[in-house]
Amino acid sequence: MEDNNILLGHGSGGKLSHNLIKDIFVKYFDNPVLRNQTDSAILEIDQSNIAFTTDSFVVDPIFFPGGNIGKIAVCGTVNDLSVSGATPKYLSASFIIEEGFSLKELESIVKTMADEAKKAGVLIVTGDTKVVNKGQCDKLFINTSGIGFLDEKYKKISSGENIKVGDKIIINGSIGDHGMAIMAARNFENFKTEIKSDCTCLNHLIKDILKVSDKVKFMRDATRGGIATILSEIIEDKNIGIEIEESSVLVHQNVRGMCELLGFDPFYVANEGKILLIVAPGDADKVVKAMKQNEFGKDSSVIGEIVDLHHGKAILKTEIGGKRIIDMLAGEQLPRIC
Amino acid sequence: MEDNNILLGHGSGGKLSHNLIKDIFVKYFDNPVLRNQTDSAILEIDQSNIAFTTDSFVVDPIFFPGGNIGKIAVCGTVNDLSVSGATPKYLSASFIIEEGFSLKELESIVKTMADEAKKAGVLIVTGDTKVVNKGQCDKLFINTSGIGFLDEKYKKISSGENIKVGDKIIINGSIGDHGMAIMAARNFENFKTEIKSDCTCLNHLIKDILKVSDKVKFMRDATRGGIATILSEIIEDKNIGIEIEESSVLVHQNVRGMCELLGFDPFYVANEGKILLIVAPGDADKVVKAMKQNEFGKDSSVIGEIVDLHHGKAILKTEIGGKRIIDMLAGEQLPRIC
Repeated sequence: MEDNNILLGHGSGGKLSHNLIKDIFVKYFDNPVLRNQTDSAILEIDQSNIAFTTDSFVVDPIFFPGGNIGKIAVCGTVNDLSVSGATPKYLSASFIIEEGFSLKELESIVKTMADEAKKAGVLIVTGDTKVVNKGQCDKLFINTSGIGFLDEKYKKISSGENIKVGDKIIINGSIGDHGMAIMAARNFENFKTEIKSDCTCLNHLIKDILKVSDKVKFMRDATRGGIATILSEIIEDKNIGIEIEESSVLVHQNVRGMCELLGFDPFYVANEGKILLIVAPGDADKVVKAMKQNEFGKDSSVIGEIVDLHHGKAILKTEIGGKRIIDMLAGEQLPRIC
Repeated sequence: MEDNNILLGHGSGGKLSHNLIKDIFVKYFDNPVLRNQTDSAILEIDQSNIAFTTDSFVVDPIFFPGGNIGKIAVCGTVNDLSVSGATPKYLSASFIIEEGFSLKELESIVKTMADEAKKAGVLIVTGDTKVVNKGQCDKLFINTSGIGFLDEKYKKISSGENIKVGDKIIINGSIGDHGMAIMAARNFENFKTEIKSDCTCLNHLIKDILKVSDKVKFMRDATRGGIATILSEIIEDKNIGIEIEESSVLVHQNVRGMCELLGFDPFYVANEGKILLIVAPGDADKVVKAMKQNEFGKDSSVIGEIVDLHHGKAILKTEIGGKRIIDMLAGEQLPRIC
């Protein structure tokens, strides 16, 4: 029985840690760098600029329709690197595990991480494991940090400093799926919904976009706080405004229904596979066309544009003809969404 | 009252997260890269090799004699990079915070991190904050990942592949201080000991060492599992052995007393400011001399050597003339030691 669960000794740095690393982490993440098991991974860098990012994942439940905490941990960091214009290359993976956690579940999560990393073309090169006493953390938290190679010509994308009036705002599909999938999994275990998280790695889609256009001014993955928070963050303190057409933003019927039932606004609900782009007007059509050819961009569309009105603010033009300000998320809707 | 504590909303990605980042993280960690607050930090790299490492810190209590969780989070990662022969440059900092945690304590920990980073000469360039519901983590966990620049000539240090019979084993001072300081702080709050954690950044000491010798074959910081676990890991599967003179290993009297009282072996107790070096015999004296001039190397000494005996094993020659095998830590002595 004990053999099938995480013991405090698995985090001791001694024999049990050693075995856990060998039997689970190195087994699935296997690559020449990790195999050395040195204090730090030694990496060759062939660019003069890199992107570096970190995220801790505490999603509850750890398994949900469309993914698990391991998938989100790999994709979240891959996406953060990708929206900076970088090509994701290397990840670290650090685990905080509650004593008594199932080794089988851990193995399944690690296997998912390995599969996603492979699909995304990144290597997991270094890691860490800590075990805390029962009750001192909730099952499993995972931190991933990532390094991507950044081509000189994409260095300005993350700052968004080239955004101009007339630029188009594009998204790669429906909003709110991840948040509502987690909400359903957490609260309505017996209530079958077909809502699946959109959690996925977007680096290949982003590569397709950058291949057809050199006029991508800004990219961001719309996670916690939803697209509303991203839109208001982008435009804050700028001498331009944003206008979004509510009717062009796709919200799946079941997500919309659940949002209405629970009093959520899908614009504030977290996504894990959605990217907001700002693109020069002349390139918008070819970018959307290229995106639609990728499986994670099938429902891409222009949802709004940069305007010379209401500077510093994002405005939603509603389906019934009204206008309202899109602000940052104020309180907390859904703790532990990622 | 609520204003002084962490709320779930501080991890929402919305307005409260925004303010927390501005008022605490960016305020103390302030540097041009972090100030951009982009999804990924954009870094210039002037070396073709980098070292990359990660660690999650769950130390309990979060404040202890000689440091706090923030100090350990910065120094632990700085040290992991340094023992690989790299010059630590950039850190990420990712926080998992329990709802209700004191903002004042968080600020004090963040300030310590900023101070230690400054002393070590590293920049904290990217971060993340998650807040979990009360009872779902114990106060505060911190992950730091780090990037160091690695000179081509130090690439082989982390593998230890050049270790030969006759090489000397050196340590920069007393063992067991960190583990016993935590033990005392955790269990004997009213029992005043003078034991202080040795937690510190060792990168400047390591630079001093590499300045005087190009025959450093291996370095490792002796953290979880103590020097015993490191010694047995180094020598495992090698066609050489290690011999350690117990009498040359410094254990402070109060640490020794507490270990005896509680049944611990100081060789297995965690350190947070101790480095084990393996150096060619001809360079050992000058390395020790250089180390003694650094405040964190005052008590440096040779404690053993590589021998052509008992291959794959580390042996301790005890003060009373006996010999015993030094093995890896088997169970768990002290959970949440770092």
